[in-house]
Amino acid sequence: MTPRPDWRLYLVTDRPLMGGRRIEDVVAAAVRGGVTVVQLREKDCPTREFVELARALKRLLDPLGVPLLINDRVDVALACGADGVHLGQSDMEYADARRILGPEAIIGISVETPEQKPAEADYLGVGPIFATPTKPDAAPPWGLEALAAYRRACRHVLVAIGGITLENARSVVEAGADGVAVVSAICAATDPAAAARALREAIQT
Amino acid sequence: MTPRPDWRLYLVTDRPLMGGRRIEDVVAAAVRGGVTVVQLREKDCPTREFVELARALKRLLDPLGVPLLINDRVDVALACGADGVHLGQSDMEYADARRILGPEAIIGISVETPEQKPAEADYLGVGPIFATPTKPDAAPPWGLEALAAYRRACRHVLVAIGGITLENARSVVEAGADGVAVVSAICAATDPAAAARALREAIQT
Repeated sequence: MTPRPDWRLYLVTDRPLMGGRRIEDVVAAAVRGGVTVVQLREKDCPTREFVELARALKRLLDPLGVPLLINDRVDVALACGADGVHLGQSDMEYADARRILGPEAIIGISVETPEQKPAEADYLGVGPIFATPTKPDAAPPWGLEALAAYRRACRHVLVAIGGITLENARSVVEAGADGVAVVSAICAATDPAAAARALREAIQT
Repeated sequence: MTPRPDWRLYLVTDRPLMGGRRIEDVVAAAVRGGVTVVQLREKDCPTREFVELARALKRLLDPLGVPLLINDRVDVALACGADGVHLGQSDMEYADARRILGPEAIIGISVETPEQKPAEADYLGVGPIFATPTKPDAAPPWGLEALAAYRRACRHVLVAIGGITLENARSVVEAGADGVAVVSAICAATDPAAAARALREAIQT
């Protein structure tokens, strides 16, 4: 039985934002700074390279006890022995992923509007809470009130995502999120460890 | 134990070439005409849609005893219960796919130059034999002599691909291929059943 993950500071990777730095180096620094969960997200990456990246992160994160989740690709998760997957609305259905990955895998689902209420998931990635430059095609921002209302109506672990910065992270946790997910706030930071440390301090956990 | 597939006429799907026709209709017609194996190949297709397409083809092909293989995506193969996968040189490694899919799955590998000699595979997709318009970034064509030499040096099932048409299909089988794989010769045909029937007659099997 996998222990319950620590959802407080959830990093979603974005290699283009890393500006040529190795993903292992950025992720290692982020975890030193206080990141508690890592999601490897790749777009248009050949499968073989995706598996290699995932294995490199798994080797890095396993000794640190930090779970690795794979965006979309159940096959990559199986190949690298990841802790689970994160599924968007156009990714595999939850029930199929659960059947393939088994009962121990962590499976998270993106919830893009407050009207979406998945019955089953280990956590929900809810947002965008604020407008975000890293996903220009995202749905309209929820705002903090919608997040708080969703929190009250929902029994799932909620990881909030979308436009979360050092300045607004605390407000997101106060609105009821179990964790905050960031992309550019860490991947694009000159010092990813310092950025993660500052975010952990901002959310006071 | 899955029976040994009939490799004679192997269809690789290409939805853009189907010109708006439903993939199920084109594949059903192709199988009526004599296609013996179907590979669902999708590029840039969201996973959920890919799984739906694969399930639709699986429902169609299962009662006909025609194997369905999925290009690249082991997760889609698992979700739809496909008979196996076809792996290109930038797709998952054979050993990973075998471990994930188990001993009964059919796993084929693309061999793009005669120098590549995979140790393990249920079949090899060798080519391009001839220049092909459907894959403009493909390696240089092998020609029939290289195919015949590869046949003599190799114990695997060989499915030849690349630029195979009604006119040259017979020469490919005579050079030693166990089967011919086509994309545009069937997907772009006005009458896919007639195109498949003519190919089967051309290879006299």
